[in-house]
Amino acid sequence: MVLIGTGNVAQRLFSCWRHSDTVDVVQVVGRNRKRLSSFEKDTSVASLQGISDDADIYLLAVSDDAIGEVSKQIPAVDKLVVHTSGAVGIQALENHPRRGVFYPLQTFSSSRPHDLRGVPVCIEADHVDDLRILEQLGKSLSDNIAVIPSEKREVLHLSAVFVNNFTNHLCHLGQLLLEKEQLPPGLLLPLLTETVEKLREMSAYEAQTGPARRGDTATQEQHLFLLKNDQMRQVYKLLSASIKKTYVEEL
Amino acid sequence: MVLIGTGNVAQRLFSCWRHSDTVDVVQVVGRNRKRLSSFEKDTSVASLQGISDDADIYLLAVSDDAIGEVSKQIPAVDKLVVHTSGAVGIQALENHPRRGVFYPLQTFSSSRPHDLRGVPVCIEADHVDDLRILEQLGKSLSDNIAVIPSEKREVLHLSAVFVNNFTNHLCHLGQLLLEKEQLPPGLLLPLLTETVEKLREMSAYEAQTGPARRGDTATQEQHLFLLKNDQMRQVYKLLSASIKKTYVEEL
Repeated sequence: MVLIGTGNVAQRLFSCWRHSDTVDVVQVVGRNRKRLSSFEKDTSVASLQGISDDADIYLLAVSDDAIGEVSKQIPAVDKLVVHTSGAVGIQALENHPRRGVFYPLQTFSSSRPHDLRGVPVCIEADHVDDLRILEQLGKSLSDNIAVIPSEKREVLHLSAVFVNNFTNHLCHLGQLLLEKEQLPPGLLLPLLTETVEKLREMSAYEAQTGPARRGDTATQEQHLFLLKNDQMRQVYKLLSASIKKTYVEEL
Repeated sequence: MVLIGTGNVAQRLFSCWRHSDTVDVVQVVGRNRKRLSSFEKDTSVASLQGISDDADIYLLAVSDDAIGEVSKQIPAVDKLVVHTSGAVGIQALENHPRRGVFYPLQTFSSSRPHDLRGVPVCIEADHVDDLRILEQLGKSLSDNIAVIPSEKREVLHLSAVFVNNFTNHLCHLGQLLLEKEQLPPGLLLPLLTETVEKLREMSAYEAQTGPARRGDTATQEQHLFLLKNDQMRQVYKLLSASIKKTYVEEL
């Protein structure tokens, strides 16, 4: 395999495959020389101009808007070319007859080194033989492989924005509030852990609690009185209204 | 101790104290006869009219708006009277010279039976001796006791709404999206778990990723195109704008 990209996703995948018996990353390709050099002790590295033409799989772990352009520069015509994006369709790899998608549904930070065994790897390919190859590749990382076509993967990626990006931002707003009162941000961690644990046993619909769920307008008014930041007031109002609407028939 | 209330909080606290060597719940008091009967095999039960007058602590686990009224009906004048609410000040127990707050910062559902060892128990009292009593009471449940005055506890409770109630609702919206595509809701759980795990190592400010964080307007437009539900579009727009504003100097 040739791995194209040197960002968080490429780094994490490479660290999983570096000691693999079944996957051999023969080359890492990137523009960023400094990042590229961190792969150098474990495999050969090259710029896009020096990309190998005899690997069996070309895996693109580049930014969404670079996928189309970079894929055009892959010299191989009969090899499997795959991108790792949740938001981009398989069509972005337009000039490749054997194309696919290999999307690990996770948030990647370079500082978090643990493995990907539980992470869903969403795969797609135009040909069934290529789908089998991607399934095997997925199994080298995870026990959780799902075949998901581009239209559904797009929605999955969108839902991940709600579940990961937006929830994280709400945690930031919560931590800001604590900071202003000189309360330690760790106070909220057990609550956050339980919020997630509950979702292993019941749907988020069933798990909902709080003043908006109960229709407790007195507490909501008190909260809005405490919130001096206009942005946070807007978030509070809109999410409370959205919760209310979700359960409107039950209140 | 007399425990007043029969809801989720009362049930959870009672189940922790039922086998305790240090805490003896001599009576559970409530209006709801059916719920009250579930305590009957382990302790004596009564209505508010039959409340015992010789316990050392009266712990109110009743709804926020009932605290004032119920506390007036507690006959003891020189006993410690405590409520368990995050949102209500200690002042709500106005007629009691020895008053306090005992607020376990957690979301309670009757179906989740695990213990409270890691849960912060936020305590407050007018007298230092009573604070020591509440500290001992807290230690019977948890290793994490924090003395927090009413003004700060109010803000803590508000931040818990962001971190628990609002994040849960976003998970619901994410699950709704999957449901429409007939994708299993469990696909998002590993991502959600990692979202929380990251927050043990870094602040939510540092952990933020996603299109709004990167200033990736193409993906945001595509997401808005996919979102047919007006309520969800509004949530998407407002939270993306709030993230953008948070990092405005870095984009």
